[in-house]
Amino acid sequence: MTDQLRVPYEGLKAFIQSCFMAEGIPKADAEIVGRLMAEADLNGSDGHGVFRLVQYIERLRVGGMTNTPNITVVKERAAMALVDGDNGLGHLAVNRAVEIAMQKAETTGVAWVGTRMSNHAGPAGLYARMPLKKDMIGIYMAVGSANHLPPWGGTEMLLSTNPIAVAVPTADEPPIVLDMATTVAAYGKVKTKAQRGEPMPEGWMIDRQGQPLTDPTKANDGFLLPIGGAKGYGLALIFGLLAGTLNSAAFGRDVVDFNADAKSLTNTGQLIIAVSVEAFCDVDAFKQSTDAVIRDLRASPTLPNFDEIRLPGERAYAVRLDNEKNGIPVHGALLEKLNNLANELGIQRLS
Amino acid sequence: MTDQLRVPYEGLKAFIQSCFMAEGIPKADAEIVGRLMAEADLNGSDGHGVFRLVQYIERLRVGGMTNTPNITVVKERAAMALVDGDNGLGHLAVNRAVEIAMQKAETTGVAWVGTRMSNHAGPAGLYARMPLKKDMIGIYMAVGSANHLPPWGGTEMLLSTNPIAVAVPTADEPPIVLDMATTVAAYGKVKTKAQRGEPMPEGWMIDRQGQPLTDPTKANDGFLLPIGGAKGYGLALIFGLLAGTLNSAAFGRDVVDFNADAKSLTNTGQLIIAVSVEAFCDVDAFKQSTDAVIRDLRASPTLPNFDEIRLPGERAYAVRLDNEKNGIPVHGALLEKLNNLANELGIQRLS
Repeated sequence: MTDQLRVPYEGLKAFIQSCFMAEGIPKADAEIVGRLMAEADLNGSDGHGVFRLVQYIERLRVGGMTNTPNITVVKERAAMALVDGDNGLGHLAVNRAVEIAMQKAETTGVAWVGTRMSNHAGPAGLYARMPLKKDMIGIYMAVGSANHLPPWGGTEMLLSTNPIAVAVPTADEPPIVLDMATTVAAYGKVKTKAQRGEPMPEGWMIDRQGQPLTDPTKANDGFLLPIGGAKGYGLALIFGLLAGTLNSAAFGRDVVDFNADAKSLTNTGQLIIAVSVEAFCDVDAFKQSTDAVIRDLRASPTLPNFDEIRLPGERAYAVRLDNEKNGIPVHGALLEKLNNLANELGIQRLS
Repeated sequence: MTDQLRVPYEGLKAFIQSCFMAEGIPKADAEIVGRLMAEADLNGSDGHGVFRLVQYIERLRVGGMTNTPNITVVKERAAMALVDGDNGLGHLAVNRAVEIAMQKAETTGVAWVGTRMSNHAGPAGLYARMPLKKDMIGIYMAVGSANHLPPWGGTEMLLSTNPIAVAVPTADEPPIVLDMATTVAAYGKVKTKAQRGEPMPEGWMIDRQGQPLTDPTKANDGFLLPIGGAKGYGLALIFGLLAGTLNSAAFGRDVVDFNADAKSLTNTGQLIIAVSVEAFCDVDAFKQSTDAVIRDLRASPTLPNFDEIRLPGERAYAVRLDNEKNGIPVHGALLEKLNNLANELGIQRLS
């Protein structure tokens, strides 16, 4: 087993596309999802890119997701739309939502587009970044695909890590891209700790008595903690209402754990807001101002134990540059799974 | 000195209005600000209502704020506007912004209105709540009026507690109103601890060596901590860019500490988003769904040391009902200040 391969973006994209086409997904759709999943990996969101391919294909095969969705706009006004993803891959519904939002915002200045009957669509930052190319700010929220968070003070897991991502254009600095769960740690980080046999730091999870839980193999006996206690719980609730309930998508008790159940409809909801900077002010002046803020923050003296001040999105940007140059790292265990899939589908292996 | 008076909402509103009129503020404007400041107190935001009156009047008198602003819309598209507050009371600029946002959202579904050349406008929740009466969701963000937060890992206070408030309509339950600073504690809470001679809990502030700071009288030797570490820093940065930089308002290094400096222009920026529920789905169905989520959360079993699950806005709602019935509490020291002001302005005292 090769320990790690670094696959060029184009190669990874083509591989994902081929897999989906072999599963009966139309070429145009397979191309979109291939591009978005490979881009997630390019940006270093390696828990949300090709890592999910086998899981998505399993869901398509058992009927939990449709491979030829008829994606439609079911509600529309000048500055909003609601996209029904018809239970296809979430990337298709959200990609359509972002395109509509950018198109509307070009005229109206701001547009808000929601999705329902969507599915897991990869990392939040992927979609918040899309409006940047039009000099727009992107804001994305989603209902997470499994409930791991109780209300503050409670023990029933009715909420997910409902993430938010916001991307802001810059001039010479890397774009600001905040991409965060409303919990201290995303659930994927807990799984990574378990895989590596490492304890979790205190503050990530508590057990049913409210005591710190640091053994990641016992994650099922406890809950994630929201950021800022009641505040993070409030944010998870609000993002869920906006991305879920408002779109007539699942939220709260109705959320299906897509890791545990590949068959049930998830009715996932997301939302994207596109904000045209040009509507508010001179675009170049805005970008220069954003750069100035970044440089002021970065120039702050640091506390002991900190080497530097980081900006949201800076690490992802550095990873992207490295991955563009050296290829996207695909680790051994994942590589083996992907090559097995390729063999099964009769398409070319990654290595 | 009376220890506490409970003043009816109408009386407090009329008192504030009279003070501003005596200061040369036109009646229509004084009425708006009186209503909004009294409503802040009615909702229990007692650090952001009439408590600020003396400070606002001081700022008007020394020329840091204008009493006859010409508030104008300087940018406009179908779903956005930018309001220039002409350095009048912040309540006037934001009130205008919310009115425009609601009006636009009625047609476009969603509207986003920013302010610049505004000033401190009271609690965030006050403005997020306004769209509720039109069955709209309100989202409000602001650049805080003093920098107490360094970037994560840094020591230079370049950021404020930049708050967000979101209000969501309900059927029979109290509306959900999340109103939060992006720091663990708002700076006002630190000041309250100092007044009461109580220590702060660990986690509110750190000193310049990164050690916990619990003595509130030493607040000037340390910094507030953001919620969730780097995440809260990211949120404070994003809210500042959206409410400040995008509106050509002050953010970062340019923020004037309005507690320390009553003369300098603050060029405060805020933003409001109004989202028409009707554009997305049946309004009654949405409200019923929101109620169902609230009841599910409230019914969760609790952790040891928790008596109940609370929803954002629930406490404020209970306080409001009590204040409507029994009057708004005005404590002794504040009452004395307000009555001195009344004597000076030749208007009727509160007691």
